[in-house]
Amino acid sequence: MSLNSFFQYFVPKDKKVFFPLFEQAASNVVAMATVLVEAVNSKSSTTRQELFKQIDKLENKGDELTHQIYLELGKNFITPFDREDIHALATAIDDVADYIQGSANRMLLYNIEDYTEPICKLSDLILQGSNDLEKAVRELKDLKNVRNIADSCIRINSVENQADYVFDRAVADLFLYEKDALKLIKYKEILAALETATDMCEDAANVMESILVKNA
Amino acid sequence: MSLNSFFQYFVPKDKKVFFPLFEQAASNVVAMATVLVEAVNSKSSTTRQELFKQIDKLENKGDELTHQIYLELGKNFITPFDREDIHALATAIDDVADYIQGSANRMLLYNIEDYTEPICKLSDLILQGSNDLEKAVRELKDLKNVRNIADSCIRINSVENQADYVFDRAVADLFLYEKDALKLIKYKEILAALETATDMCEDAANVMESILVKNA
Amino acid sequence: MSLNSFFQYFVPKDKKVFFPLFEQAASNVVAMATVLVEAVNSKSSTTRQELFKQIDKLENKGDELTHQIYLELGKNFITPFDREDIHALATAIDDVADYIQGSANRMLLYNIEDYTEPICKLSDLILQGSNDLEKAVRELKDLKNVRNIADSCIRINSVENQADYVFDRAVADLFLYEKDALKLIKYKEILAALETATDMCEDAANVMESILVKNA
Repeated sequence: MSLNSFFQYFVPKDKKVFFPLFEQAASNVVAMATVLVEAVNSKSSTTRQELFKQIDKLENKGDELTHQIYLELGKNFITPFDREDIHALATAIDDVADYIQGSANRMLLYNIEDYTEPICKLSDLILQGSNDLEKAVRELKDLKNVRNIADSCIRINSVENQADYVFDRAVADLFLYEKDALKLIKYKEILAALETATDMCEDAANVMESILVKNA
Repeated sequence: MSLNSFFQYFVPKDKKVFFPLFEQAASNVVAMATVLVEAVNSKSSTTRQELFKQIDKLENKGDELTHQIYLELGKNFITPFDREDIHALATAIDDVADYIQGSANRMLLYNIEDYTEPICKLSDLILQGSNDLEKAVRELKDLKNVRNIADSCIRINSVENQADYVFDRAVADLFLYEKDALKLIKYKEILAALETATDMCEDAANVMESILVKNA
Repeated sequence: MSLNSFFQYFVPKDKKVFFPLFEQAASNVVAMATVLVEAVNSKSSTTRQELFKQIDKLENKGDELTHQIYLELGKNFITPFDREDIHALATAIDDVADYIQGSANRMLLYNIEDYTEPICKLSDLILQGSNDLEKAVRELKDLKNVRNIADSCIRINSVENQADYVFDRAVADLFLYEKDALKLIKYKEILAALETATDMCEDAANVMESILVKNA
């Protein structure tokens, strides 16, 4: 039990500041993942480029939200959780956004023409993980539904495991069937960036689990 | 000094819950590393595949132990160390297991035929690091032998440095002598996964060092 | 507010121990980055090899400084910040040094002949980030100039963003123009190590931001 959680029995906490910002940041990640899924499933390269630009804009919006959370941390003496956990959660959500944008960016930069099944599957998994991330974040404000948060975190872990599996299988297939080394490297890099986005969801889930653990 | 370590002067801590779980998790990592060394040194690909399956099973067992530690954290109000350190140590030990399994998995998926000297050396280093990890974990329960824990952590750091060196040298050799780009990429990926397993041992050592620092 | 920061209102803190060590560690990173910039811009491979050796020596010196900080942490009951933050900052600065040396090491091991524009640009960005790191570390001793520390951290974040951009662009160009897969992999690995050094600067900035947040 930290001094901070000790204080919370006496001092009413203003949750009005942090939770809306966290919810907006998580919704923003869901928006990015939704656009990503749309982009990798699009048949038109013009549409795809438009959608990738949208991801860039959303990522900028996410950066601003993260920055606002940091600013509020500087201003507020009493926070609903330990200050370091608020910082860590904001950073983790920002990392998910960064990797979604990083994946989109690589697909664009490497001039990928074939949006393969593993690319689409991993994008789907990112969207699933982001949805659970948002759900968990929304429940954080009242720690009544600890079970719900824990369940979302477990599902995020399962998404990450599935993404690992898809990635490993896809890379093994590249080694079996792709004889052009340059193409192989390109695809491996893109798949790795997508898979890392699900790792970052797991990092965010770990931060939330440790918030639960501290405030249990 | 945290409030938690402040409390520990007054409240008897039940160490019976966490330490056996940590010891089992660390022993499980040693078991995985032992099987890994056996596998990479085996001449028969059938035996090797059997051993890789064993690593998968051990990794599942490790996941369950990690999960049990998280569950106990939710139940126990008083913990022998800060709750976040218990969480971090469980996660770090789990990461070592993940990378050992990940390395084995890549060797299997990439259909590697030649188990080269650097692969065997890195596997040996993982086993050394895991042994020291287990030693340090066993000493955690009574912080009397701080020196022993610190020594194990120092040895883990040295193992990680050696693994870095073996990895760098091996990759440089691949660039010098391996003209098949696809083979080069496969081996580089496997060597990287093995080397990362020793990085994860170092992460676990860092958590233990920071537990020592807090409870000194 | 942790118990530690609570204590600091009553107990005079001896800043004479930790801050000089942190300043030396940060200056050492600046020295390494300065030599790196000189090396990648040098026309003579003999000079370059000399400079790379210098980087190795400086990295050893950095290791000793990090170790000294850890030792002092064991000895001092009262620390200017939370013990875990001192540990985390020392580790983060050490990571920057590790990646600068790792980059230099790869250039040497891979027998790179052409020190390309992106290699030089990324080295410049590492030097910029290191300079800001040192500035921020120097301001930590009196938390009066919180604004200055925050500004340095923001600049480090911007450096990391620029490095991301240079890296992405350079890798995309490699895919466009470098038809030799082995060369492409070599350059990609070197660029990745350089880019990661700026990530590590950002990690150090994150630790400092969280120190600001806790001690605000």
